[in-house]
Amino acid sequence: MKHLLTLLLTLVVISSSAQNSKDKVQIRKIFDEALERGDSYEMLRYLTKNIGGRLSGSPQAAAAVEWSRQQMMTYGFDTVYLQPVMVPHWVRGKKEIGRIVNSKKLGAVNVNVVALGNSVGSGPAGVLGNIIEVQDFQELAKLGKAKIQGKIIFFNRPMDPKLMDTFAAYSGASNQRGSGPSEAAKYGAIGVVVRSLSSFTDDVPHTGGTRYGLNIPKIPAVAISTEGADLLSSLLKDDADLRFYFETHCEMLPDVLSYNVVGEIKGSEFPDEIIAVGGHLDSWDLSEGAHDDGAGCVQSIEVLRIMKAMDYQPKRTIRAVMFMNEENGLMGGRKYAELAVENNENHIAAMESDRGGFLPVGFGISGTTTQQDKLLSWKPLFEPYNIYQFKRGGGGADISPLRTQDVPTIGYLPDSQRYFKYHHTGIDNFEVVNQRELELGAAAMASVIYLIDQYGL
Amino acid sequence: MKHLLTLLLTLVVISSSAQNSKDKVQIRKIFDEALERGDSYEMLRYLTKNIGGRLSGSPQAAAAVEWSRQQMMTYGFDTVYLQPVMVPHWVRGKKEIGRIVNSKKLGAVNVNVVALGNSVGSGPAGVLGNIIEVQDFQELAKLGKAKIQGKIIFFNRPMDPKLMDTFAAYSGASNQRGSGPSEAAKYGAIGVVVRSLSSFTDDVPHTGGTRYGLNIPKIPAVAISTEGADLLSSLLKDDADLRFYFETHCEMLPDVLSYNVVGEIKGSEFPDEIIAVGGHLDSWDLSEGAHDDGAGCVQSIEVLRIMKAMDYQPKRTIRAVMFMNEENGLMGGRKYAELAVENNENHIAAMESDRGGFLPVGFGISGTTTQQDKLLSWKPLFEPYNIYQFKRGGGGADISPLRTQDVPTIGYLPDSQRYFKYHHTGIDNFEVVNQRELELGAAAMASVIYLIDQYGL
Repeated sequence: MKHLLTLLLTLVVISSSAQNSKDKVQIRKIFDEALERGDSYEMLRYLTKNIGGRLSGSPQAAAAVEWSRQQMMTYGFDTVYLQPVMVPHWVRGKKEIGRIVNSKKLGAVNVNVVALGNSVGSGPAGVLGNIIEVQDFQELAKLGKAKIQGKIIFFNRPMDPKLMDTFAAYSGASNQRGSGPSEAAKYGAIGVVVRSLSSFTDDVPHTGGTRYGLNIPKIPAVAISTEGADLLSSLLKDDADLRFYFETHCEMLPDVLSYNVVGEIKGSEFPDEIIAVGGHLDSWDLSEGAHDDGAGCVQSIEVLRIMKAMDYQPKRTIRAVMFMNEENGLMGGRKYAELAVENNENHIAAMESDRGGFLPVGFGISGTTTQQDKLLSWKPLFEPYNIYQFKRGGGGADISPLRTQDVPTIGYLPDSQRYFKYHHTGIDNFEVVNQRELELGAAAMASVIYLIDQYGL
Repeated sequence: MKHLLTLLLTLVVISSSAQNSKDKVQIRKIFDEALERGDSYEMLRYLTKNIGGRLSGSPQAAAAVEWSRQQMMTYGFDTVYLQPVMVPHWVRGKKEIGRIVNSKKLGAVNVNVVALGNSVGSGPAGVLGNIIEVQDFQELAKLGKAKIQGKIIFFNRPMDPKLMDTFAAYSGASNQRGSGPSEAAKYGAIGVVVRSLSSFTDDVPHTGGTRYGLNIPKIPAVAISTEGADLLSSLLKDDADLRFYFETHCEMLPDVLSYNVVGEIKGSEFPDEIIAVGGHLDSWDLSEGAHDDGAGCVQSIEVLRIMKAMDYQPKRTIRAVMFMNEENGLMGGRKYAELAVENNENHIAAMESDRGGFLPVGFGISGTTTQQDKLLSWKPLFEPYNIYQFKRGGGGADISPLRTQDVPTIGYLPDSQRYFKYHHTGIDNFEVVNQRELELGAAAMASVIYLIDQYGL
């Protein structure tokens, strides 16, 4: 009996170390393919340079749908198809104007502003009024209707530079943009100016979606660059009577038919077990949407391309999903989850890349403890690639609706230090994505997808 | 006895965990200071934008000496002084010309080239000849004098994209630039074209120093962009008779008096024990020398500034050293080590930052196993800052001469993926340095220096 146990144990150790060494070899092959013959960077070049910014409902968004469909067909994936989905169609219109009108020190000064996504426009009449700086909604409540009525509210709480995870800093400041306009409107404000959600002090304003509450007047809202916000704040200290003017020409048009784009390689052993990996195809209109989220889209297609290039036949079905409308509605992500239920699909995992094409540092997973433990157990396989952060908790906006079906969701984690320089700005262009970082990210993602395909979660 | 031992052990555990928690707090303070009130980025702005490229012997190098002296005085370091050192004075002269002369396919084509540092110029007559592509010196030897005499040699071995450590890929290709011209001249070559040492395919040529061997004819040499190299190589495949023309106007002038700049905070308990931290003040002339090595210089000054800002009084003497002439002579590094002997100085450690202002990932140390173990034992203190790589082996060019005095040398390690896009090019400018990455690097360096100050090595 004892001998038998020893034998069994030896066999288990041998087989697990053989398995481990097979995985090491496969992962090395994946990285080699991505770094030597990778296609993610050239895909990104096309999507950003030849198509450009692609807000939901825009002609560019339609072009991106058709491009990604053709691209996946060209690579010879087994199936490529569209999932129709109605999406909001917000347009920015003519360039915004922002102006400090009556500074004692400087006179009238133009400042860089952009309309918040989904916001109503001021029209050519603009919004003109006294402006009050606040840090948060508590301060707003303290001021109350008497002091706010007829004024413009200036939300100026910065992202905390001390936090290593800049997404945590973003979360700590983003309610100003998401709910600020409606919160201020409750007290009779006529407009809102929000400090850009940026980790840096510069003159580049950051747009992003706002959500109007039900039965609250919809007031126009802009983001001001961090430099502009600092200037405005310092002038307000000397001059409480300061007035601000802004003009936006944005409007919400009727919903438009658009699509998620799905490409898949059928599994040989368990074709009904689906592993999805995706990014969102739509982007804001101000730039080419390179990091947000062109990178995630091309990396997801690249995961499948790498498998084909390596002649790797997955056991399970691997699916690349280009989600539509993450930025101002999440209609694509919702539709995808809806269809998964409708079609009785069995997703064993979903991964999203939506934190930019930066250096890969790890993965975060939401799921059962067993599922999390499994992902975390693969960490040693990634240390040769300087990937050390395997965390409990994670996912992505587009795959979050799948959590209600208990699908484990995995967020790909690139380093976060540079992201909030480019996020939702006019400078998130192809040139600020580094080829090796993008490729390493695709390789890291493909390696985790490979392991899930081999061993499940 | 047993009780006494238990008591002692408890005390040791308590004191070491108290020490550990004190260090955690100090390191958090260091990072907060760097991220909230850091000055490294503004220092770098001045050095790059107001002074610019600063090759040894240039007026800009002199300006950089005076700027860093004044900057350290302004911060109130205890002593700031210059170490005179004679340095080579190489000048590039008029812009280089590179041309494929007689391509059957394309006719004459201009390509982007830059003269190698320290190389002799062709003068207005230029170098014109048939061109032979080789991958390495073995191939050169095989061809021999008969085939090489009177021709131009084209070294075209790329950096290996599969290596995670791009410095290893650099080492694997850099002898073409460092020794290629003299190796080719041994066989009668009249000129050398080297593939740029880059991790990327683009049209940006990379300069860098070459070293002529003794008693070997000095022939002109240029680096060609990687795109240019690929073009040249593909045309050569169809047309072995291809001729190439290049023109360089560089020359070596007589040596010039320059300086290392040293600033220090005197230690309160062990003033004779010196901890040096530095970068090199000189840069190539093609750009502003932002990553190479403006970043390392301002980070080193920032280490001392942070200590003063925190009211931290070091036990040992902490020294920021701006080395002169790393790029084309290492005269500053040599002089510094020489003076350390002459002045009977006791360096307990030296650290260098010369791999760019990118995301901090770790440190490497050359020294005794005990010294290495000590540095490696501090790793857990850095994990909250996503710094995981503590390695045996490391240092920097400028501090390497101190190794003969058995000084342990530490290389600060930022992530290496983007470095060889900018290294020695015309695009290594302020704009490609990210503020948070630069600041995090300074904080990581200051934290290690703090620990060495507290506990020695």
